[in-house]
Amino acid sequence: MAHISILGTGTMAQAIAAVAGRGGHTVTFVGKDDADVRFGDVVVLAVPHSALGDIVSRHGSELAGRIVVDITNPLDFETFDSLTVPADGSAAAELAAALPQSHVLKAFNTNFAGTLASGTVGELTTTVLIAGDDADAKATLAGIVTSGGLKAIDAGTLRRARELEALGFLQITLAATEKISWTGGFGVVA
Amino acid sequence: MAHISILGTGTMAQAIAAVAGRGGHTVTFVGKDDADVRFGDVVVLAVPHSALGDIVSRHGSELAGRIVVDITNPLDFETFDSLTVPADGSAAAELAAALPQSHVLKAFNTNFAGTLASGTVGELTTTVLIAGDDADAKATLAGIVTSGGLKAIDAGTLRRARELEALGFLQITLAATEKISWTGGFGVVA
Repeated sequence: MAHISILGTGTMAQAIAAVAGRGGHTVTFVGKDDADVRFGDVVVLAVPHSALGDIVSRHGSELAGRIVVDITNPLDFETFDSLTVPADGSAAAELAAALPQSHVLKAFNTNFAGTLASGTVGELTTTVLIAGDDADAKATLAGIVTSGGLKAIDAGTLRRARELEALGFLQITLAATEKISWTGGFGVVA
Repeated sequence: MAHISILGTGTMAQAIAAVAGRGGHTVTFVGKDDADVRFGDVVVLAVPHSALGDIVSRHGSELAGRIVVDITNPLDFETFDSLTVPADGSAAAELAAALPQSHVLKAFNTNFAGTLASGTVGELTTTVLIAGDDADAKATLAGIVTSGGLKAIDAGTLRRARELEALGFLQITLAATEKISWTGGFGVVA
């Protein structure tokens, strides 16, 4: 069983905690102002993209050697027409550059919170797409996801985070314009 | 009923023709060396991305005023690790720039041929995502798609072609690495 630390208090943080809890893992929420934090093996940054810089500043050294999961969708919420990261990069790539001693994964950003909580997208079991450069780290996270009743797919190296963020962005625009609901979205048929 | 011209002879060309045919539309295949081509209202370029330049050279003026549908996924097939178009652009944006008098749409590139032919992705009805700057053109194509038994979603302006191409790219890499099958992929739950 893994020990999972979750930063964040929103619906995504709660939903991911519930998945890990269903799988029998130990989950600890880490508050913004908590002192003396002892992180688990897996640290999920369930925060807005704009909060990542501060987390790196505060906790960068303590995150060394750990699996760090970036779930962010770095949308430009003023225009709703682009991401805020460079077109040839990704939020996850930037985080990995800032945390060179951590095993950074991109995951959960293509899942709406409601589909993590329910475990389903329509009739399909919710699938978590995971990108990253460390195969063991991906396998660990996939194990947590599947133990919680969801499916997991290794989506490739961290370079694929760019496409996962494009997918997350597209899905959010479709829900925001009411083409799909926040409990629907892209389901994966293997 | 619309008159649809399809360039291309592959499985995607055949599958899109079948969808339009099921909807009662007139479909004409246009061969590479056909002289005196009379295009229909909707022209589907069901060809590899590398063939678009030649089509623009040959037929650019005849495509003026028509709905031109770009279905391509401009993958770098040597590395299978990126697209061949600029990171901040798309194949569709480049085509639209080359055909300023046509109504260029991005569509079908997120659908595997098998899911267009069968009409389903797993238990879900196949959904065609359509991006473009002309609302009437998008409505025309959506009408053709739905008349053929599929679903259609307006995915936004042609700027969203970038995300559709990212989605198409990701889906192809997942199938090529056997994480999903060529009859599966991303289904849309509204």
